[in-house]
Amino acid sequence: MSGSAAVPSPTGSTRLYAVLGHPVDQVMAPSLMNPLFADRQIDAIMVPIEVEPARLGSVIQGLKAIGNFDGLLVTVPHKFAVCAYADRLGETATIAGSANALRREADGSWSADNFDGAGFVAGLRKAGHTLQGATACLVGAGGAGVSIATAMMLAGIERLLINDLAGDRLDHLVSRLDARWPGKVSAVPQAATAGLDFIINATPLGLKPTDPLPFAVESLSERTVVADIIMKPARTRLLGEAERRGLRTHPGIHMLTEQIELYRSFFRLH
Amino acid sequence: MSGSAAVPSPTGSTRLYAVLGHPVDQVMAPSLMNPLFADRQIDAIMVPIEVEPARLGSVIQGLKAIGNFDGLLVTVPHKFAVCAYADRLGETATIAGSANALRREADGSWSADNFDGAGFVAGLRKAGHTLQGATACLVGAGGAGVSIATAMMLAGIERLLINDLAGDRLDHLVSRLDARWPGKVSAVPQAATAGLDFIINATPLGLKPTDPLPFAVESLSERTVVADIIMKPARTRLLGEAERRGLRTHPGIHMLTEQIELYRSFFRLH
Repeated sequence: MSGSAAVPSPTGSTRLYAVLGHPVDQVMAPSLMNPLFADRQIDAIMVPIEVEPARLGSVIQGLKAIGNFDGLLVTVPHKFAVCAYADRLGETATIAGSANALRREADGSWSADNFDGAGFVAGLRKAGHTLQGATACLVGAGGAGVSIATAMMLAGIERLLINDLAGDRLDHLVSRLDARWPGKVSAVPQAATAGLDFIINATPLGLKPTDPLPFAVESLSERTVVADIIMKPARTRLLGEAERRGLRTHPGIHMLTEQIELYRSFFRLH
Repeated sequence: MSGSAAVPSPTGSTRLYAVLGHPVDQVMAPSLMNPLFADRQIDAIMVPIEVEPARLGSVIQGLKAIGNFDGLLVTVPHKFAVCAYADRLGETATIAGSANALRREADGSWSADNFDGAGFVAGLRKAGHTLQGATACLVGAGGAGVSIATAMMLAGIERLLINDLAGDRLDHLVSRLDARWPGKVSAVPQAATAGLDFIINATPLGLKPTDPLPFAVESLSERTVVADIIMKPARTRLLGEAERRGLRTHPGIHMLTEQIELYRSFFRLH
């Protein structure tokens, strides 16, 4: 808690938001959203909620039954499962089959979408990178990876190679993307290295210092940008190795900071 | 929210507490508990939860399924109903049949008790009043009233007269108290006025400025202390009328402020 920004104490009239994960200790959304609420004098607070997969349904049904609960963010491993609790899905969540934000509508129904990909793409653009026509390899088709894949295709990527250990999940994603962008998306049995503008780690590998690298950086060409979506540590071993080889890197925090504005809009925090 | 104390923003590792009510806007527990957490550098936050009676079960089951959720406070109208969701009840909650605090035990079970009465009694004592051997009239046998009745008997009150519009609820309480303190507790069809050391409003009358008085103050004797458990407004019309007649008064806020230390102990916030 040391070092976290000061915000007004909740009172009886405070509206509630939550971020759901398992584990949840690592989430940074409360540290970013709560100062935003405070700055805008919005009487709301975002809290972390630790929930095991087997209890997700109970928790979400309970949260929906709370009168002053307005929305939630979702992280590993719940991004796929939460789609079943939304009454409607936005474009990215529909294609990706994964959501990371749900909001209560005025009529009491719930809408969901996935902003990981849009946040990631916005971060790359802000760093000066061009996605239109690019070739990219995405490693990891989990709850964030599927959203990144979708958003990169929406951003005009020409060729997307996706690698994931879970073959069924990967095939499912590629078939959905191929239906929308025929011939541009392929599953690959291991991370590609040649001719890449971008290679992205969207696996959890790198959260722990003892994790193996999600892919080798030795054979990457000079023009390849190595991106990671892991936020803690800020500089993963992968990014360190890539830097040592002179490659440009893109750390995970941008995906989240660029999403804050998207969340603000999604949750209608004016 | 203006004027509420600053507390550290929740982070991913923050533990959760809630106060449940319907409505919940008026609750003051978050404004008191959150500065306590901050002062003691406890990484926890208490948020308000608005829940309709029909949805109480869903909400409590959902809260119990949250890994970092440690306890809740309960206010109107849920103090009776929550007893069904506790695995064990403390002494006051057992006699009163009403609880205002639940905590998760190390084994995952839930314990409940009711501290309204103990807080109220502590407030009277701190104000210099003696309860041992006293005669009191309690108006209102709701979730707080039953706890106050129990705590006053535990504190050595000699004679307790209780009035409530809901006859079945009143009879139920009196029979429980009579079993423990035979002949000392009676139901009365309207508020008593003669020979009282204390008369206590434990009804919601006075929350709204247009509410009628819960009882008349004209016939009270000079020695009667007029107490109210309503916290907003701090000075109810009842207390104003009593003061105008020269009677000593005891406002509702003491019941809550004295409970904070009891909550701290119950929730093991060291």
